[in-house]
Amino acid sequence: MGEAKFTVDLNADIGEGFGIWRIGDDEAMIGMITSANLACGFHAGDPAGLLEVCRMAAEAGAHIGAQVSYRDLHGFGRRFIDVTFEDLFADVIYQIGALQAVAEVAGTRVSYVKPHGALYNSVATHPVQARAVTAAVHAVNPELPLLGQPGSELFRQASMVGLRTVAEVFADRAYHPDGTLVSRREAGAVLHDPAAIAERAVRMVKDGVVAAVDGSVVPVHVQSICVHGDSPGAPHIAAAVWEQLRQHDIDLQPFT
Amino acid sequence: MGEAKFTVDLNADIGEGFGIWRIGDDEAMIGMITSANLACGFHAGDPAGLLEVCRMAAEAGAHIGAQVSYRDLHGFGRRFIDVTFEDLFADVIYQIGALQAVAEVAGTRVSYVKPHGALYNSVATHPVQARAVTAAVHAVNPELPLLGQPGSELFRQASMVGLRTVAEVFADRAYHPDGTLVSRREAGAVLHDPAAIAERAVRMVKDGVVAAVDGSVVPVHVQSICVHGDSPGAPHIAAAVWEQLRQHDIDLQPFT
Amino acid sequence: MGEAKFTVDLNADIGEGFGIWRIGDDEAMIGMITSANLACGFHAGDPAGLLEVCRMAAEAGAHIGAQVSYRDLHGFGRRFIDVTFEDLFADVIYQIGALQAVAEVAGTRVSYVKPHGALYNSVATHPVQARAVTAAVHAVNPELPLLGQPGSELFRQASMVGLRTVAEVFADRAYHPDGTLVSRREAGAVLHDPAAIAERAVRMVKDGVVAAVDGSVVPVHVQSICVHGDSPGAPHIAAAVWEQLRQHDIDLQPFT
Amino acid sequence: MGEAKFTVDLNADIGEGFGIWRIGDDEAMIGMITSANLACGFHAGDPAGLLEVCRMAAEAGAHIGAQVSYRDLHGFGRRFIDVTFEDLFADVIYQIGALQAVAEVAGTRVSYVKPHGALYNSVATHPVQARAVTAAVHAVNPELPLLGQPGSELFRQASMVGLRTVAEVFADRAYHPDGTLVSRREAGAVLHDPAAIAERAVRMVKDGVVAAVDGSVVPVHVQSICVHGDSPGAPHIAAAVWEQLRQHDIDLQPFT
Repeated sequence: MGEAKFTVDLNADIGEGFGIWRIGDDEAMIGMITSANLACGFHAGDPAGLLEVCRMAAEAGAHIGAQVSYRDLHGFGRRFIDVTFEDLFADVIYQIGALQAVAEVAGTRVSYVKPHGALYNSVATHPVQARAVTAAVHAVNPELPLLGQPGSELFRQASMVGLRTVAEVFADRAYHPDGTLVSRREAGAVLHDPAAIAERAVRMVKDGVVAAVDGSVVPVHVQSICVHGDSPGAPHIAAAVWEQLRQHDIDLQPFT
Repeated sequence: MGEAKFTVDLNADIGEGFGIWRIGDDEAMIGMITSANLACGFHAGDPAGLLEVCRMAAEAGAHIGAQVSYRDLHGFGRRFIDVTFEDLFADVIYQIGALQAVAEVAGTRVSYVKPHGALYNSVATHPVQARAVTAAVHAVNPELPLLGQPGSELFRQASMVGLRTVAEVFADRAYHPDGTLVSRREAGAVLHDPAAIAERAVRMVKDGVVAAVDGSVVPVHVQSICVHGDSPGAPHIAAAVWEQLRQHDIDLQPFT
Repeated sequence: MGEAKFTVDLNADIGEGFGIWRIGDDEAMIGMITSANLACGFHAGDPAGLLEVCRMAAEAGAHIGAQVSYRDLHGFGRRFIDVTFEDLFADVIYQIGALQAVAEVAGTRVSYVKPHGALYNSVATHPVQARAVTAAVHAVNPELPLLGQPGSELFRQASMVGLRTVAEVFADRAYHPDGTLVSRREAGAVLHDPAAIAERAVRMVKDGVVAAVDGSVVPVHVQSICVHGDSPGAPHIAAAVWEQLRQHDIDLQPFT
Repeated sequence: MGEAKFTVDLNADIGEGFGIWRIGDDEAMIGMITSANLACGFHAGDPAGLLEVCRMAAEAGAHIGAQVSYRDLHGFGRRFIDVTFEDLFADVIYQIGALQAVAEVAGTRVSYVKPHGALYNSVATHPVQARAVTAAVHAVNPELPLLGQPGSELFRQASMVGLRTVAEVFADRAYHPDGTLVSRREAGAVLHDPAAIAERAVRMVKDGVVAAVDGSVVPVHVQSICVHGDSPGAPHIAAAVWEQLRQHDIDLQPFT
């Protein structure tokens, strides 16, 4: 019998409803992940809904991350907004604090921060917004790690202020040979076959590589694997990834 | 030289703007009060504006209270909303947590909670909403006092769960002989003369009484005096109250 | 062969999403109704979503009604808000106008108004809010009919200002012997069997009666039958009602 | 006695409050302008407030324009948002329709459209957003003119679909020799002396020129002069412009 030599975290977006509206099957997903990225009310997530999801996460043993966002319910935080440093800095503090209080009442706490949607994309390259996010996280709690994209402006600035960064990869997304993601607008950007995605996840963790669209092998740095929670087949994919990783003796643990 | 035998707190609503919009003169008010009731984003208060006001309060030595509200920017939290226990419970937790994080970044903290506007009126009599507020405050931090109206359902329920309550009076409002406030819809409900209001404040603190509309003398329990911050003459009234209390050797201190 | 002696309208709530969020299956429902009650942005309904649903309705030949609401995305318009006459009057005008422009661009128009959720309940008895709604509809277009509950304060006030009223019944709701609805909080308030609901609809139209919970027969005035669009089985129920009415030679037509 | 040989329109932003919040002195401004740009609820403007301002404009004889915006109360529409064509197209239709209904109830109507804030800047160069605005205005009413910046992408696209454009100039802004505005971030970008601004307005209308920052004379095409309504001295500046134009026999008329 082998022993688990590898450990990885599985993260997914959870609690992305608002009021009466729901997205995805939070109950099904929560058992298949180790880190739950929770909306904080700006792009989704009403307080009562968040409290419920925090309780589910606490019970399932999943860690909770604050998925901070632009203030944009209408656009689900998926539209770039040219927010000033001052506003974004304070908006991020406000969101983390709000979720933190909800999480504590549910018996858990905010363990990390992950920017959402258009803000996730923006802070990969936008120095002012990246600095606003890192400064805000640092001001709230310099021990809070940032979950995100290695090589991003966010990670560069996080390192400068001493914030820990946690690198995530996407098992269901196509990669270019240079390690960047194929845009969602291109055909084949998103994989849908649970078995293929699960195998990919195993290879990412054990071999530290992923096959790019041209067949070349690209090295990846994996601390967490992001699985998407908002598609109809999401729980099946998450389950396939979870089981395949377990079968390869890979230990599934929150990264913190 | 006499020594200060009496101590009282002066509280006012501060930071009631949103984005570009402002109400009142926060800079002028902050030096005239010992407790600043801050909006938390639901009826007013954008994060960057709140951060600025928290910094002003920290510098001025005023304590900060979370003025929790219905979610109603359009109505400034002044309209009763028939919110469920579950929603109000979580909404209050969310608001306190958000302000708490902002306050901490400004080097201070949330020292108490005071319901705002229509929620303030509702929890005076509405058992379910009063219970939602007290349960939420207790869940966040059982040491947080509630600032409000003595004799209210809120205070009754607060006592039941062991929350400290702090009684406030209104130096600029007319009182009925039974100690209740004259409705704002009636003529003479609000006093405007700074000198008269200031004298009234002194009498409330030193003698524990206020003259009712019929001339009778009504006992009042004073731990904090609320001065309004949103009228044009507000800073003048606050200054008059502040100076008159000081001239009578009354010590002005946050209640906590 | 008999000819269609009876005519009735079938109405349902459609377009109750917001941004990324969706409720119900609008495409399935739109072919099974003759009047589509569309959210106007205050409790649901973002403009692009509304435009899409207006186009679907125009193509399907369904009439469009403005489902005006309290401003409450978080509560989906299901919470009473103590709005003033002035605000509600203007809010209703604003909502009708917004939907009217969207409908016209889609090649159709707003044919009627139906209050939504808590406002629907409120205007059944609340004189000020009922007057605000009727005054607003009258100010926008005195030819616009109001769809709602016979015997309500809304209908009383509508008659006073000369607005046409259209009475709706609920084929899937239990009735008391006095013709009022059994509260949703009580067991058996909502029927779920498509066949039973469809038979009930036929009897309502042809015989002008419905069986109450105690078995007694209650007369009902039917100009429109409301079918719910937001439950998982909604399209099946709507289809059953549609087919059963057609089989009984009942003509399905928008009421206007 | 001379006769008025020149005619010009004066436009200003009015009604930029929301709920309890107000900006500028609408009552003072409304008598000094011929075209009132009204917020439509997305960056400012609650329905009851808009109805009040529409009534004031109707009484004062000022025409009303729909100042369409990004959906951004927090940022007052001053932040670029990367909205899709579909959303912006429908958002503009929704806003015009909403204001149109409010204006009609006030006895007037929407006579033109002027993008607000960051959208105004965006459509000067952003082809997709400019096309969304022009397509939306055209879809609502192809007779509605667009008030804006000559040479902009918005005007280019408006001409392509046959929309009338109305060119505005800024009497209180410094101009570069090439006719573009000096950025607000630079010193001297905004003039504050009412007399100087008024003289500048007269010269713009009578001579069709403005003195640039380097002293050179720049030709300008003037159909409307924009005066700002949100600074403390705004009514004084508007009054000075109004009087100086009248003294030079320039007729002040809405452009439509």
